Amino acid sequence: MEGVGPVFAEIKGLNEECGVFAIWDHPEAAQMTYYGLHSLQHRGQEGAGIVVSNQETLRAHKGVGLVNDVFTPASLKTLSGRAAIGHVRYATAGGGGYANVQPLLFNAEAGGLSLAHNGNLTNAKEWRQKLEAEGAIFQSSSDTEVIAHLMKRSGKENVADQLKSALARLTGAFAVVVMTESALIIARDGHGLRPLALGRLGDAYVVASETCALDIVGATFVRDVAPGELIVVRDEGMQSESVLVDEDPAMCSMEYVYFARPDSNIDTINVHTARKNLGKQLALEAPVEADIVTGVPDSSISAAIGYAEQTGIPYELGLIKNRYVGRTFIQPSQALREQGVKMKLSPVRGVVEGKRVVMIDDSIVRGTTSCRIVRMLREAGAKEVHVRIAAPPIKHPCFYGIDISTSTELIAAQYTIPEMCAWMEADSLAFLSVEGLKSGIGRSQEMPDCGQCLACFTGEYPTNINKRQVSQMSV
Amino acid sequence: MEGVGPVFAEIKGLNEECGVFAIWDHPEAAQMTYYGLHSLQHRGQEGAGIVVSNQETLRAHKGVGLVNDVFTPASLKTLSGRAAIGHVRYATAGGGGYANVQPLLFNAEAGGLSLAHNGNLTNAKEWRQKLEAEGAIFQSSSDTEVIAHLMKRSGKENVADQLKSALARLTGAFAVVVMTESALIIARDGHGLRPLALGRLGDAYVVASETCALDIVGATFVRDVAPGELIVVRDEGMQSESVLVDEDPAMCSMEYVYFARPDSNIDTINVHTARKNLGKQLALEAPVEADIVTGVPDSSISAAIGYAEQTGIPYELGLIKNRYVGRTFIQPSQALREQGVKMKLSPVRGVVEGKRVVMIDDSIVRGTTSCRIVRMLREAGAKEVHVRIAAPPIKHPCFYGIDISTSTELIAAQYTIPEMCAWMEADSLAFLSVEGLKSGIGRSQEMPDCGQCLACFTGEYPTNINKRQVSQMSV
Amino acid sequence: MEGVGPVFAEIKGLNEECGVFAIWDHPEAAQMTYYGLHSLQHRGQEGAGIVVSNQETLRAHKGVGLVNDVFTPASLKTLSGRAAIGHVRYATAGGGGYANVQPLLFNAEAGGLSLAHNGNLTNAKEWRQKLEAEGAIFQSSSDTEVIAHLMKRSGKENVADQLKSALARLTGAFAVVVMTESALIIARDGHGLRPLALGRLGDAYVVASETCALDIVGATFVRDVAPGELIVVRDEGMQSESVLVDEDPAMCSMEYVYFARPDSNIDTINVHTARKNLGKQLALEAPVEADIVTGVPDSSISAAIGYAEQTGIPYELGLIKNRYVGRTFIQPSQALREQGVKMKLSPVRGVVEGKRVVMIDDSIVRGTTSCRIVRMLREAGAKEVHVRIAAPPIKHPCFYGIDISTSTELIAAQYTIPEMCAWMEADSLAFLSVEGLKSGIGRSQEMPDCGQCLACFTGEYPTNINKRQVSQMSV
Amino acid sequence: MEGVGPVFAEIKGLNEECGVFAIWDHPEAAQMTYYGLHSLQHRGQEGAGIVVSNQETLRAHKGVGLVNDVFTPASLKTLSGRAAIGHVRYATAGGGGYANVQPLLFNAEAGGLSLAHNGNLTNAKEWRQKLEAEGAIFQSSSDTEVIAHLMKRSGKENVADQLKSALARLTGAFAVVVMTESALIIARDGHGLRPLALGRLGDAYVVASETCALDIVGATFVRDVAPGELIVVRDEGMQSESVLVDEDPAMCSMEYVYFARPDSNIDTINVHTARKNLGKQLALEAPVEADIVTGVPDSSISAAIGYAEQTGIPYELGLIKNRYVGRTFIQPSQALREQGVKMKLSPVRGVVEGKRVVMIDDSIVRGTTSCRIVRMLREAGAKEVHVRIAAPPIKHPCFYGIDISTSTELIAAQYTIPEMCAWMEADSLAFLSVEGLKSGIGRSQEMPDCGQCLACFTGEYPTNINKRQVSQMSV
Repeated sequence: MEGVGPVFAEIKGLNEECGVFAIWDHPEAAQMTYYGLHSLQHRGQEGAGIVVSNQETLRAHKGVGLVNDVFTPASLKTLSGRAAIGHVRYATAGGGGYANVQPLLFNAEAGGLSLAHNGNLTNAKEWRQKLEAEGAIFQSSSDTEVIAHLMKRSGKENVADQLKSALARLTGAFAVVVMTESALIIARDGHGLRPLALGRLGDAYVVASETCALDIVGATFVRDVAPGELIVVRDEGMQSESVLVDEDPAMCSMEYVYFARPDSNIDTINVHTARKNLGKQLALEAPVEADIVTGVPDSSISAAIGYAEQTGIPYELGLIKNRYVGRTFIQPSQALREQGVKMKLSPVRGVVEGKRVVMIDDSIVRGTTSCRIVRMLREAGAKEVHVRIAAPPIKHPCFYGIDISTSTELIAAQYTIPEMCAWMEADSLAFLSVEGLKSGIGRSQEMPDCGQCLACFTGEYPTNINKRQVSQMSV
Repeated sequence: MEGVGPVFAEIKGLNEECGVFAIWDHPEAAQMTYYGLHSLQHRGQEGAGIVVSNQETLRAHKGVGLVNDVFTPASLKTLSGRAAIGHVRYATAGGGGYANVQPLLFNAEAGGLSLAHNGNLTNAKEWRQKLEAEGAIFQSSSDTEVIAHLMKRSGKENVADQLKSALARLTGAFAVVVMTESALIIARDGHGLRPLALGRLGDAYVVASETCALDIVGATFVRDVAPGELIVVRDEGMQSESVLVDEDPAMCSMEYVYFARPDSNIDTINVHTARKNLGKQLALEAPVEADIVTGVPDSSISAAIGYAEQTGIPYELGLIKNRYVGRTFIQPSQALREQGVKMKLSPVRGVVEGKRVVMIDDSIVRGTTSCRIVRMLREAGAKEVHVRIAAPPIKHPCFYGIDISTSTELIAAQYTIPEMCAWMEADSLAFLSVEGLKSGIGRSQEMPDCGQCLACFTGEYPTNINKRQVSQMSV
Repeated sequence: MEGVGPVFAEIKGLNEECGVFAIWDHPEAAQMTYYGLHSLQHRGQEGAGIVVSNQETLRAHKGVGLVNDVFTPASLKTLSGRAAIGHVRYATAGGGGYANVQPLLFNAEAGGLSLAHNGNLTNAKEWRQKLEAEGAIFQSSSDTEVIAHLMKRSGKENVADQLKSALARLTGAFAVVVMTESALIIARDGHGLRPLALGRLGDAYVVASETCALDIVGATFVRDVAPGELIVVRDEGMQSESVLVDEDPAMCSMEYVYFARPDSNIDTINVHTARKNLGKQLALEAPVEADIVTGVPDSSISAAIGYAEQTGIPYELGLIKNRYVGRTFIQPSQALREQGVKMKLSPVRGVVEGKRVVMIDDSIVRGTTSCRIVRMLREAGAKEVHVRIAAPPIKHPCFYGIDISTSTELIAAQYTIPEMCAWMEADSLAFLSVEGLKSGIGRSQEMPDCGQCLACFTGEYPTNINKRQVSQMSV
Repeated sequence: MEGVGPVFAEIKGLNEECGVFAIWDHPEAAQMTYYGLHSLQHRGQEGAGIVVSNQETLRAHKGVGLVNDVFTPASLKTLSGRAAIGHVRYATAGGGGYANVQPLLFNAEAGGLSLAHNGNLTNAKEWRQKLEAEGAIFQSSSDTEVIAHLMKRSGKENVADQLKSALARLTGAFAVVVMTESALIIARDGHGLRPLALGRLGDAYVVASETCALDIVGATFVRDVAPGELIVVRDEGMQSESVLVDEDPAMCSMEYVYFARPDSNIDTINVHTARKNLGKQLALEAPVEADIVTGVPDSSISAAIGYAEQTGIPYELGLIKNRYVGRTFIQPSQALREQGVKMKLSPVRGVVEGKRVVMIDDSIVRGTTSCRIVRMLREAGAKEVHVRIAAPPIKHPCFYGIDISTSTELIAAQYTIPEMCAWMEADSLAFLSVEGLKSGIGRSQEMPDCGQCLACFTGEYPTNINKRQVSQMSV
């Protein structure tokens, strides 16, 4: 997406993505989960948590903030045990606070239950109302707690059966890990909208939202968890079952375009390579005469390099990001900003002055950041600014993880491309085609029957979206 | 230099660089200094400080740590006044601690004196011994305090004369800013070893070690402070004088190669562009058949892109840096590292597996990091690893800012290139030539008579280095 | 009780007491609750929380630690609204952690519910097991959550009816405050085991565990909430009902002896005055020839002054407490303690040396602290040490708030008074009689029919204690 | 003094007292100093520091704040060595900040020098001006640094001789400890205005401002350092010398009245006992018919108990202090205070209502706190309030440690006793006589020729006060 979006440093405000990690049978389960969550930090920065099992009880440590802020050597030391699940959370407005930090942990007399979940359930609200009417008490506002209540009321003895029963009643996107004292259960929705990879680390099983988390702990990638698959890991070993199978595979395209870390592979396709190919494809579809190509750091760098490689126009460092901007950074007042005090992103005058610049961004949501960058480049002396977006226009809301309440926030749903170009005062503006996106990512080549979700570009949703939701959100 | 060296995120252990900033006549002097220091953070991360003048008294706030850790909105608010100087410090072993954080501030009955200094004085120790024998009391172990004592004992009334008198007795590299209630004085050593740029922000004068600090506050670059120049800024305006003129200009080459931020210009040459040119030059001098080019993030990315552009070999993301590694990061034990837990830098298996890789690094000091990266790339499946260094071999200690106590630490001073190549188990290893470095940076083209310091490559030092020092350091 | 027990600085490890505060219709409801909790800090130091109602939603801020640590000006500012309830918690072993910090807050689609509770429910565990078997999910291990689940499953519409229904199923001690967006409900168990006072502050209603919390906010004391009373406060005013009336009043004696703040009144008897009278009574029952009287600070000072006043033996400062001992205090190692490094309590050599000392303590639980103090006084030169305890021997476990799992921990349940005296190496040891306790506190004089709980001294419990519990706890 | 003055919890704003501690030849020197400073915390709460010697170098850790805030287990661990000096500092307005936290440490090539000082030098300012004119650079604004400069410029080789030379030029009050790598030197001014006690702890020598610091570390009191004595402790043992002998002993009376901890002995007189005797003496001089006696906690409790014991009027807890008030306490707004929100001190309505109250305070400086307490007691229902002050009226500024810039701040210097009584709306007001003070403390009885400083009561100063100072301060 446009703007100051970093590959894996911070996430834009519209994202409801999360990251999950789980490990079974490792002497340093909590610490490995810590490193895993660390590498998934880009998927959620509002809260982090780890639940560990020592086979007798489950124990949690969680908190609001970054992984590094939430965990200390002392808190990790309290988490002894050979199995753990972890979560990094991006909280939507109003849904923040400690109560919603995952994994959720429920300690009952009969034993513990812990859950962590990435995705968005499209019928969670209905179930919540129904359960509350029956006397159920919810502590959090997260969808994940609905899964727990449905499990507890399933009437099933076995935790895997409880989870199956619960998931059968839910629609939407999920990659979920559930842990009790004696088992780890992993499940993915029938479309496989959210990624989930399985690895081994010696005897241990490792599961993570992205392969970069397997890499950081030194685990070997085994395979992606299949859409609709439910895996039960116990000390005796691993059992897999296809439980939610009657749906077409539909991996979220935005994972490739923007969300995932460039060093992760999703369905064996490297994300950096996919982005570079999107940049090359964009160069073929929308070439322009220019002196330099530059990308918006960090998430658009790969596409920019691809664009440069394809066109032969040199890639240059026309925009730079200030890494030190963080929680404790003292924000300049509006007055100081207007006087020119720069924030996260600066143009590099020495590079762009007098030049015709192609500015590559990964996507456009509201368009305000792109607009600001174009102005910034011009103020730094760029002679022309040609904006090239390495994805098609986003015109439809996402119900599987992106937090846009109405289409009115999506600039591409409201304006034509020439209108947008005029508004952001660019010399030209072009987007990648949907076909270009598909061939750039290259899923079809690698996996003939493996589709991808293009709903935010095309409006064709892979699950049954409640009609009321669509109409509400589209107003 | 080799390894995990970031352009502007962290500085390797050998560096004694610092950054200075000063502003005169701005209503938000302290806050502007805060932003300036922020953008100079890469030059020193052990301590930061600001001294502000409200025309009646000088007031300091300083602390150990990053700019963001040292300053809070509350502490900035205490620093009211229209003039300020600031400093970020890299402390050498043994010289750390609060007492050495700059700017130094001395409040006497007759008025205040504050100093901040980037560089290394080669005869400071002799002066210190002499002054102590005369009853002087030193509070810090920093060279900068020697300047203050020499000023106070100069017998001069005027602070500019005091500084001239002090600097005349000192040798080495310095870019120094001095502030009293009524004046700001700026001076640079006769060779101009350390950079210092002058700008304007409305009526205000701004001075900074690098132009990126001018950019961040929205100041306009005016010119670099000249080698040997002393500038006095008062409310009446600015006066310049050439006080240390009998020396040849000799800007530190390592500023271009590794130290400075890529978006800074030094003597009007953009650092990113210089690095990219070093990469292109390296490609001409040391080509190799390979599938991909990759750079060690962050400081070698520019050179890697240049190498790729020149050779046509695609630039890929073969190594990735974990941004979240910070002070509060829980380090893996040696045992976990050996089991494969990655730290700051990870290879990207999806990119390098089965490939012939050209790995570009900016320089090599001890060689251990390069060695580790080669191994990492092989473990991730690289078929061949060709190491290309975008600078000549570093064979001699630096007396102007680099903290290497003996040449024995410099691998290139001890071994031949084939020996180094064998030791790091690379398929090939090549360095840029000294001539290539000069033409890549391109100072001679832009500024016919403007030399650069190549001492760490050639052993030819631009100032009179005490013979004893050289022999000691070279043992 | 014996030892370093402070009146209101810290609570000994055996205590399960808590403090509650509520305010209705005050513009600064949260801030007033903050001050109220502050003055109740002695009743619980493990956690603190406030829930505020702005008539539309309930909002919580809670945390582990002292009131001062949990709340900041910023966190208080987020708690806007005209009604609030608050809680300070003392967590028993295993029951700690954020999840158990009160008030509990449950936000359902139909509205919020918040509860805070002081006391101990004797049949909570049975209810919890029953509810979990029915699919209820508990987030905390606190008894208070059982009340919430019973309310939600009561089938009643009205929150006051829900609470009545829930309390009717529960036995034990409680002083509970419940808040929704539209009402504040206050209830006390039928014996009135735990104190609860009602006050007015202008138009606002204020409720607190102790009158000191009314005083600190400037509220006027109205009356104590009656045993078995349930009060509903709405914007229309206050309604009272006697709902749990078939039980004899039985205020906990230990509130007077040790728990409450000396400046609080319980049933209109000032606690300091009660303690002083206990000391006088003790002097009549167990006089001794001695040079000085000293008390164990802080909780025994009042009794010691009473003893001195009655006997004419001067009261002196023979023991002093180090106020600065706190969370960040660096504990001396065992080796340093053995070499004489003192901790919380020090004897005053200049006062006790060569003297016959009467040492007054408020009560004895395990006896180890008394033993240590006797030794300390001897080492400081006391010629004789006569221990006098301003309460009868504690021989029976408490089910209403004191956390002693078995009688074996109670020294007075295992040994005779002469045996205890010998063990602690005192020159003499005497306890107050049960009759002396009653007449010292003076409830009978003030309130002819108003009883008090003496169970820990006599074994006669005021509620139906599960036989199994008693036999388990007495083993 | 009047008001909320705690014995050892906090110090009123007028106090310039400090506390020093030193230990020589103990394996845990820094940690013992930490405990010692802890017990001296009441003498200064603005800053704390420890310098330790490992015989080769001196190493400091200091900071702004309480001892507990400044030191962590980690920071203590860095302070290894067998000798240490420490300091707690009360900073006067404008003289705060890290630079002034003691001990001062000066590391020169020839060796280190560290100093800590309690007291006030009456000619420090003159010396400072003289030294600065000679080129000396001062880092702090503390008098102590003047001692260091005079030492360095003394021309003496030996550190003890340097100190003798420096002290000979200085007038005023001091108890000073100086440490180098090889010696600890202790000195006290010729009048002995500030206390300093010497003890042994096994082989180690221990020195502290008060004996409570010897007690806390388990050291045995040996003797007070004599007025004018200079002691040098080296590994070979201890040497004493009388260096400043031509002056009359004059211990500060306010140490007994208010400053010192009640468990300390000064010149073998216990402070609590002295205060109790002042209360008894006051009862003899100014009896009154009343129902209860109460003291302002904490510093007036001893005197109040003495007054009660002498008169037979019962001592009651009429005022209570909120211990939890601390740095992080959220202060009520003025509006809330006016509505009755109480701060540090609360009246106990249950005790004072309807009673004739004798309120004992230790001293009166500005009178505002006494005035507030009288009003508070009346509002809580006291029928009469009789104020009795356990010291004579303070009419003259102190030059030896109390920070009152002019006599105009001293209410007793401006008004008669009846005027003060009317102003504070008390029913009666009486002070102790100077003779009563002397006999109450009892120095004359114990030590026939051992005088005490009464200057703040009588205006007769024991050292030659610069005439200009007196006239300036008295305006």
